[in-house]
Amino acid sequence: MEPESRIRVALERNPYDVIIGSGQLARVGDALSALQVRAGTRILVVSNPDVADHYAAQCLSSLEAAGLKPVLLTIDAGEEQKTLDTLRIILDAAQHNGLERTSLMLALGGGVVGDMTGFAAACWLRGIRVIQVPTTLLAMVDASIGGKTGVNHPCGKNLIGAFHQPSLVMIDPLTLRTLPAREFRAGMAEVIKYGVIGDPELFERLEQAEDLSDPGRMTPELLQTILERSAQAKAAVVAADEREGGRRAILNYGHTFGHVVETLTGYGTWLHGEAVAIGMATVGQLAVNKGLWTDSDQQRQLTLIQKAGLPTAWPSLNIDKVLDTLRSDKKVRHGQLRFVLPDAIGSVLISDQIRDDDVRQCLTSQH
Amino acid sequence: MEPESRIRVALERNPYDVIIGSGQLARVGDALSALQVRAGTRILVVSNPDVADHYAAQCLSSLEAAGLKPVLLTIDAGEEQKTLDTLRIILDAAQHNGLERTSLMLALGGGVVGDMTGFAAACWLRGIRVIQVPTTLLAMVDASIGGKTGVNHPCGKNLIGAFHQPSLVMIDPLTLRTLPAREFRAGMAEVIKYGVIGDPELFERLEQAEDLSDPGRMTPELLQTILERSAQAKAAVVAADEREGGRRAILNYGHTFGHVVETLTGYGTWLHGEAVAIGMATVGQLAVNKGLWTDSDQQRQLTLIQKAGLPTAWPSLNIDKVLDTLRSDKKVRHGQLRFVLPDAIGSVLISDQIRDDDVRQCLTSQH
Ligand SMILES: NC(=O)c1ccc[n+]([C@@H]2O[C@H](COP(=O)([O-])OP(=O)(O)OC[C@H]3O[C@@H](n4cnc5c(N)ncnc54)[C@H](O)[C@@H]3O)[C@@H](O)[C@H]2O)c1
Ligand SMILES: NC(=O)c1ccc[n+]([C@@H]2O[C@H](COP(=O)([O-])OP(=O)(O)OC[C@H]3O[C@@H](n4cnc5c(N)ncnc54)[C@H](O)[C@@H]3O)[C@@H](O)[C@H]2O)c1
Ligand SMILES: [Zn+2]
Ligand SMILES: [Zn+2]
Repeated sequence: MEPESRIRVALERNPYDVIIGSGQLARVGDALSALQVRAGTRILVVSNPDVADHYAAQCLSSLEAAGLKPVLLTIDAGEEQKTLDTLRIILDAAQHNGLERTSLMLALGGGVVGDMTGFAAACWLRGIRVIQVPTTLLAMVDASIGGKTGVNHPCGKNLIGAFHQPSLVMIDPLTLRTLPAREFRAGMAEVIKYGVIGDPELFERLEQAEDLSDPGRMTPELLQTILERSAQAKAAVVAADEREGGRRAILNYGHTFGHVVETLTGYGTWLHGEAVAIGMATVGQLAVNKGLWTDSDQQRQLTLIQKAGLPTAWPSLNIDKVLDTLRSDKKVRHGQLRFVLPDAIGSVLISDQIRDDDVRQCLTSQH
Repeated sequence: MEPESRIRVALERNPYDVIIGSGQLARVGDALSALQVRAGTRILVVSNPDVADHYAAQCLSSLEAAGLKPVLLTIDAGEEQKTLDTLRIILDAAQHNGLERTSLMLALGGGVVGDMTGFAAACWLRGIRVIQVPTTLLAMVDASIGGKTGVNHPCGKNLIGAFHQPSLVMIDPLTLRTLPAREFRAGMAEVIKYGVIGDPELFERLEQAEDLSDPGRMTPELLQTILERSAQAKAAVVAADEREGGRRAILNYGHTFGHVVETLTGYGTWLHGEAVAIGMATVGQLAVNKGLWTDSDQQRQLTLIQKAGLPTAWPSLNIDKVLDTLRSDKKVRHGQLRFVLPDAIGSVLISDQIRDDDVRQCLTSQH
């Protein structure tokens, strides 16, 4: 049996485990039995065609072997389908398959499937349990942990949703083998983020790795370390601050400028993780300009981002539109810009002392 | 100034007040200021045409006078409109009016408006504050307190929703003056329920009243007492058991048989409260048959229900269908019927010792 590791998300009310290990997909049924899920329990497994083709059979047979009653629902789950309409499809399936209070939903897929399935589980009968089985790197290290669920509104991302913690997160690195390389690299941006905001050892481990852009060229040990450290980081922040506000805000490192890139280049040009990579590079420069961290640390960050095959250069964007977009971000308070700035590898601070001129100077000097 | 009374819903995480008093509608703005809601805060006031015609102006001007920024959304809010489609209309209005995390929604209307607005507030940005201003007796004594929110699924009532506690419940008995008499009487069923399950003094006060079927013929003191005692009862159960299961189950007194009546006669024949009245009369008889309470207490209950202008006779329904419906109720556990049975005026117990034969005997002897 391959090594597995368990990370506890130590919430007061509904703590749960993140289980990480090669081959875990075949053990999801056992894990649920260990959670006292009764034999005969209905489970609505939600996935999308790409992912289901590869992994649904294994997941379903593991559940069946544990005496559970899974049914599979596949939905189209691109970002454009992350809507109330698709939510309705999941809820209809819940009704159709007779899901009761003791039933479960299980999300098998990337963040889109996870967010929608989690939200459906939050709403069905005012909340049934959900299991997250993420199959993208981004969903493994970020989206599946922490209980944020939801769908997009035509006018903005993730405007509609709920906080609904999963009962279990099951991560099988083997599923990453089929993930498109670009999607894998996008997820690496969040991994690097965890290094910068709080885990200097992870950062160094990444620096020592030969390759960061392809799971096929990484050792299983490195991949396991990456997944464990990232899940630990996310779990710690989530446990400290379940509903955002304080500490959870540091997870937005790189995301403020990243959000600007996503918005102004049109969603679809850059993947989220790519925009975050650009955002980290940019806010790192801002921190250097403000004398908060050293040029050599910024260089280490840039080198790592590039090793993961991710972009660092700020795109050419109208600076006034950039400032407008920064200000319309829902995290802005009382009109004051707030940034998460690095002050060492493994340490960030939150500042509302950044003026428009600082931003202008930083962005224009990047060209 | 008229007397007002405050009942605390003493939840651990988000306690809130229920304020009851004639003329409170004109003081909702002040009450929000007292809750530290900042001047300039946007408030989406959701109502339906009937109710808005009578009360929106007063509510909006009270909010404006307190420096708040209300906008009114009126929606059609019959039970048939309690759907995901109407939820979307509210969420679109939230977007359109720029509702932020610090913004509020306010439900001005009956339980349908309250349940949908509460659910929209639960979902918007993963949860913003909601104020409940109920205008039906049912919503005042039941729906507005306790945080159950949601919409119907085409295949069943309230299947989709969230637990989302209001930040304030504001009850103005004067709004009952325009409520259709039949709606008022339906709400009285829930009031009588509170008497039977836990408040013998309320029960006696109702017995002493000259009229229970028309708020115009009731003294302001009686109405105030009814609203206070009912809110206290609901608040106490909610505080003891926020997410149902144990104590909250006693609120289902009369509802198990009531649900059967609603289902088998087709929704629309009887109002919910009327079905509950029949349900209380019926389960009272079951308790007498089982030797749990006295015939004279059952007589007192029947007399009170009838004084409120509510039905007590079990309709003629196919007994096998009745048993099937009882068993399909989502509160059934492991196939065992569960009933809330009275054993004194002001006291109930929960039993899973009732057999099909007991039900058959009770229902057939009612004709
Ligand atoms: N809930 C949170 O806390 C949180 C955090 C971050 C992001 N998100 C959300 O996550 C979403 C993005 O998630 P994502 O990056 O996982 O993208 P995604 O869910 O869109 O998946 C990316 C693509 O990879 C495919 N795919 C997934 N797993 C695969 C596999 N193992 N093999 C082959 N193909 C596979 C999918 O079919 C899809 O085409 C966004 O909607 C974002 O809002 C949520
Ligand atoms: N959330 C809960 O805990 C809870 C509890 C019980 C019931 N409910 C829900 O509440 C709903 C029923 O609520 P309801 O009985 O208040 O019915 P309702 O909301 O349908 O209102 C009944 C009618 O009265 C009208 N009306 C309301 N106030 C008025 C006023 N002051 N003057 C004139 N007309 C007025 C409305 O326009 C409507 O036509 C159901 O959907 C039920 O599921 C929820
Ligand atoms: Zn991110
Ligand atoms: Zn009721």
